[in-house]
Amino acid sequence: MIVVMRSGASRENIQAVVSRVSELGFRAHLSAGEERTIIGVIGDERPVEEGVFRRMEGVEKVVRILKPFKLAGRDFHPHDTVVPINGISIGHKRVVIMAGPCSVESRSQLLETALAVKEAGARILRGGAFKPRTSPYSFQGLGRKGLELLAEVKAETGLAVVTEAVGLEQVPLVAECADILQIGARNMQNYSLLHAAGELGKPVLLKRGMMSTVEELLMSAEYILSHGNYRVMLCERGIRTFETYTRNTLDLSAVPVLKQLSHLPVIVDPSHATGNWEWVTPLAMAAVAAGADGLLIEVHPHPDKALSDGIQSLRPERFAELVTKVRQVAQAVGREV
Amino acid sequence: MIVVMRSGASRENIQAVVSRVSELGFRAHLSAGEERTIIGVIGDERPVEEGVFRRMEGVEKVVRILKPFKLAGRDFHPHDTVVPINGISIGHKRVVIMAGPCSVESRSQLLETALAVKEAGARILRGGAFKPRTSPYSFQGLGRKGLELLAEVKAETGLAVVTEAVGLEQVPLVAECADILQIGARNMQNYSLLHAAGELGKPVLLKRGMMSTVEELLMSAEYILSHGNYRVMLCERGIRTFETYTRNTLDLSAVPVLKQLSHLPVIVDPSHATGNWEWVTPLAMAAVAAGADGLLIEVHPHPDKALSDGIQSLRPERFAELVTKVRQVAQAVGREV
Amino acid sequence: MIVVMRSGASRENIQAVVSRVSELGFRAHLSAGEERTIIGVIGDERPVEEGVFRRMEGVEKVVRILKPFKLAGRDFHPHDTVVPINGISIGHKRVVIMAGPCSVESRSQLLETALAVKEAGARILRGGAFKPRTSPYSFQGLGRKGLELLAEVKAETGLAVVTEAVGLEQVPLVAECADILQIGARNMQNYSLLHAAGELGKPVLLKRGMMSTVEELLMSAEYILSHGNYRVMLCERGIRTFETYTRNTLDLSAVPVLKQLSHLPVIVDPSHATGNWEWVTPLAMAAVAAGADGLLIEVHPHPDKALSDGIQSLRPERFAELVTKVRQVAQAVGREV
Amino acid sequence: MIVVMRSGASRENIQAVVSRVSELGFRAHLSAGEERTIIGVIGDERPVEEGVFRRMEGVEKVVRILKPFKLAGRDFHPHDTVVPINGISIGHKRVVIMAGPCSVESRSQLLETALAVKEAGARILRGGAFKPRTSPYSFQGLGRKGLELLAEVKAETGLAVVTEAVGLEQVPLVAECADILQIGARNMQNYSLLHAAGELGKPVLLKRGMMSTVEELLMSAEYILSHGNYRVMLCERGIRTFETYTRNTLDLSAVPVLKQLSHLPVIVDPSHATGNWEWVTPLAMAAVAAGADGLLIEVHPHPDKALSDGIQSLRPERFAELVTKVRQVAQAVGREV
Repeated sequence: MIVVMRSGASRENIQAVVSRVSELGFRAHLSAGEERTIIGVIGDERPVEEGVFRRMEGVEKVVRILKPFKLAGRDFHPHDTVVPINGISIGHKRVVIMAGPCSVESRSQLLETALAVKEAGARILRGGAFKPRTSPYSFQGLGRKGLELLAEVKAETGLAVVTEAVGLEQVPLVAECADILQIGARNMQNYSLLHAAGELGKPVLLKRGMMSTVEELLMSAEYILSHGNYRVMLCERGIRTFETYTRNTLDLSAVPVLKQLSHLPVIVDPSHATGNWEWVTPLAMAAVAAGADGLLIEVHPHPDKALSDGIQSLRPERFAELVTKVRQVAQAVGREV
Repeated sequence: MIVVMRSGASRENIQAVVSRVSELGFRAHLSAGEERTIIGVIGDERPVEEGVFRRMEGVEKVVRILKPFKLAGRDFHPHDTVVPINGISIGHKRVVIMAGPCSVESRSQLLETALAVKEAGARILRGGAFKPRTSPYSFQGLGRKGLELLAEVKAETGLAVVTEAVGLEQVPLVAECADILQIGARNMQNYSLLHAAGELGKPVLLKRGMMSTVEELLMSAEYILSHGNYRVMLCERGIRTFETYTRNTLDLSAVPVLKQLSHLPVIVDPSHATGNWEWVTPLAMAAVAAGADGLLIEVHPHPDKALSDGIQSLRPERFAELVTKVRQVAQAVGREV
Repeated sequence: MIVVMRSGASRENIQAVVSRVSELGFRAHLSAGEERTIIGVIGDERPVEEGVFRRMEGVEKVVRILKPFKLAGRDFHPHDTVVPINGISIGHKRVVIMAGPCSVESRSQLLETALAVKEAGARILRGGAFKPRTSPYSFQGLGRKGLELLAEVKAETGLAVVTEAVGLEQVPLVAECADILQIGARNMQNYSLLHAAGELGKPVLLKRGMMSTVEELLMSAEYILSHGNYRVMLCERGIRTFETYTRNTLDLSAVPVLKQLSHLPVIVDPSHATGNWEWVTPLAMAAVAAGADGLLIEVHPHPDKALSDGIQSLRPERFAELVTKVRQVAQAVGREV
Repeated sequence: MIVVMRSGASRENIQAVVSRVSELGFRAHLSAGEERTIIGVIGDERPVEEGVFRRMEGVEKVVRILKPFKLAGRDFHPHDTVVPINGISIGHKRVVIMAGPCSVESRSQLLETALAVKEAGARILRGGAFKPRTSPYSFQGLGRKGLELLAEVKAETGLAVVTEAVGLEQVPLVAECADILQIGARNMQNYSLLHAAGELGKPVLLKRGMMSTVEELLMSAEYILSHGNYRVMLCERGIRTFETYTRNTLDLSAVPVLKQLSHLPVIVDPSHATGNWEWVTPLAMAAVAAGADGLLIEVHPHPDKALSDGIQSLRPERFAELVTKVRQVAQAVGREV
């Protein structure tokens, strides 16, 4: 942390800052220029509020030097984290495809989709049993029954399962059935849930909030890591902007940025981002070209009968085409599907 | 809902939409122009996914007619909802001021602030016992101990108390002590929490998510109302934009918009929005001029020693000035403080 | 400017930065902590690109200290700038109201509006002769004919006139007729136009771009000031956000922020911001409560026949009510209309 | 256009809307449901203001049906537009790479860069002679001298040239030297400039404003097309969002969206979007995977000495690597570089 004093700051102002630095257990390093004095605060600044210095007299500006995350950062853990699931390694050479319906609706719908996506090349089945919906009048998911169906279809197909816990109270139930616990975009800063995920002995797929910065995503990952669970995957799923043609704006820059800042695997969900099946395939290809470690894709056998998000779901045959195209891009960038 | 067919849509396409409308329990009203056919869907469209029609062949566009909220809307409840708390009526002529520290830090800090804000004209004491913090390394609040301090200071000063439950598991504890349960911006779409708030026999202060639309705020209120609790207050606290001078952008247009769309009281929090005490007073005045029913203001006796959000906290003497100025504006618009 | 070196930066890295600082004509001030070295760059940093240092080896971060604007800033000119127009002083005690139609459409429309807004208390007539329109198929304004009508109505009513030049080539024409040259939001960074405005001997109303920061607005003002014209008024007219209920989001925080950073008068345009006449009056009141020096309001005698922006135009009788209400707020904050 | 009447609208209200429809030269198509009446407006709605109907009594909502652009749309021109430049076809199988320095700084800088990018595989040289800069104190480009250097280096290397006209007055000068006239992001809605570009007999590269929607970009293209110039290329260069890690957020979804809505070629500029050379290569690869027809890349022989935007410029050897990687992706998606 650097405290920049105003040009007119008095000796007393400067002394007061230096004293406060000491009181807080840091060492101050003074650099008195002709016009203004700069005070370096030496030590781990992460737990210190900027306001502590910014509100003091004669202070112009406070600049943080350290990144606010630690365990999630590459400085702390230089090598890529690889998350092993069901014989697959996420964060390694293979680009992993997770696919399935937005919501689990029935045994036949789920099984039909699971068989189709497995056949096409997916390794992990997605499907929501608990659905966070903006409207209380929308379909909220089958709940416990949906989890049972996921468990059955998992047993039948051998696919691993990723599914969301919308609230803290659902974590134990979800953990019984799922191989990966999903924390949804709306819950990215639900700290009770992050805490529970941190104590869980299972991999976590953490979706970026549609209003959250890359740094905030890493801070939410830090919550999970600091509670002891290192098997975290980050998921970019579109951010909210002024553009309305797509439902959200897929931020593919976040892929190389996250790979540089962090060692955690990065998954991309082009289905929720675009909100329209027609644009899912080109963006899935782009995500892999940008360096994504995996994809999360919505597939539904009859999208016009889907109980949620039918507009963005691919039919199984389109999904198979997507996998073919994504495979070609993966090979071009030295990876495989 | 109106389904607009493409100009080239076939007879079969149109017939298929009409049949689907019937299957879903609605009546279809056909309007065949020369170039394109428009199909009106008659009935309560709220639970229907747009995708149901948008994915059908020959469909160009689906337009919703009904507003997605119902109980929160003025059509349903034309008169202003008034929330009575501790002898005060929120949503009526009086502009209610809620003030206090960001976090409860100690008995003396809380009591000193409470006495000062009461003296200046506040009727409700705010103070966080559980703090949602972006970083796991930041001060997370005193928790249960903080609630006890709030209860003590409430007993001593006669002020009502508003405080936040960050997770579902904290609701019963918070409900014991608080007169108003606060749901924070990060939790605006935490549906488990909204559900619990809906079953609570206490008023709720629902903060707008910093990247949530006015419509989404009303949908979250709808969750609470539809679970039986009608004593909901909406709180505008700034939205996230590209502007970085202020922490968030206070959306004061939301005040008249919410008052037009909904019957619920609207509170404004200029402290979190601006993130800087210097701009809190003019924006508090502006909020009242725009029609706000109440204000939520951060006050701390020693802002430079605050464990959270010191930059935006007013000292008690500045807060007293704020109340004086806000009172003048309130009188100019036919209200009182 | 402060150059923060990485913790592992070598002696050579540091020396290279110091040399570059000297080469650029600055003095370097070294502060060698235990872990990392900080190099202060002493002198006017405004013309220096950050990249000059950020791309050097061993550099972690470059922090600017000086605000990028100078002439527009309060440090340079501590007292409020007052712009005198036609016997009125903008930026002083009186809150000035500028009102009129979005577009000049006909002599009778303009005269009828001008007489009505004058009667109600406006001192300046607004009206577009050249209209920047998103679509080439929309009405583009009467052009030269519109300016002639403005000149006629000005002569007849004694109102001062503010009108926009959409392109550089229109500046001389507009300057002939107008008392204030308006630079529209889409042209806030049209540097040719800013340059021309800087050489003009007339007051300029500079509208904030709908996706421009407060700092960028001040930089655009700086262009005009640095070309010799100090009679600049800043205008907040709403920024683009994700919220769609209002056309843009009126950023009233910008009012106290601009008044603190700059000495220039601040005008608020609630008509364009909200895009709906129903919300114009409460936001006009809020703007004045927040400290605005003036208002820009759209008024049309027959809004449903307006050739542009009819939705947001007030009828003359509503405008008269607005002035009454704004006057009450102005008095409450120690000003007058 | 569809006018939806409120449920309580009277016969007279409906009749008034129908009459207005006729007055404006359209035909009205009435669809009287039980609860509400819907009035279809038949004809080309593009030049009609929504306010015309929205302000009428009894009207609930006005819905536009036609897309606001016409000439730029695929409905009007189903086949891809191919822009031939200097023996290259933009918008065809080959992905065209335009590369060079942000600003032209000197003959040697420009020539060195041009030879290097040509050697690596670029076909078009970019370089700014006129630079739109936020600050009046920043380097504004060499102007006319820069154009002369571009002409010399073009003659020497055989590369085609793309360069920007910042103001209307520069168009003739730029047109003399450039093969492609660039309209920058800040000028996307500078209608005088668009008009001039429309009358120019040269290809135009139109950059999306960082605050502009896809639809507004197409409307700006429509201005150029409607003035007679069909050789327009659209350029996605990042939009402004709340994320600050990258300078802007590259909106790669815009690539498939634009390709679907329009027949014009789409170019992507990852250098300005990210503002950091480290992320340019993965995003260039992603752009091609998403379907871009070309790339615009900043290259500088000595980025730490660049007079503008050095942070985002690639060194020539890095650029050569970029081309190699982009070529592999291009081949994977059935294209070539």
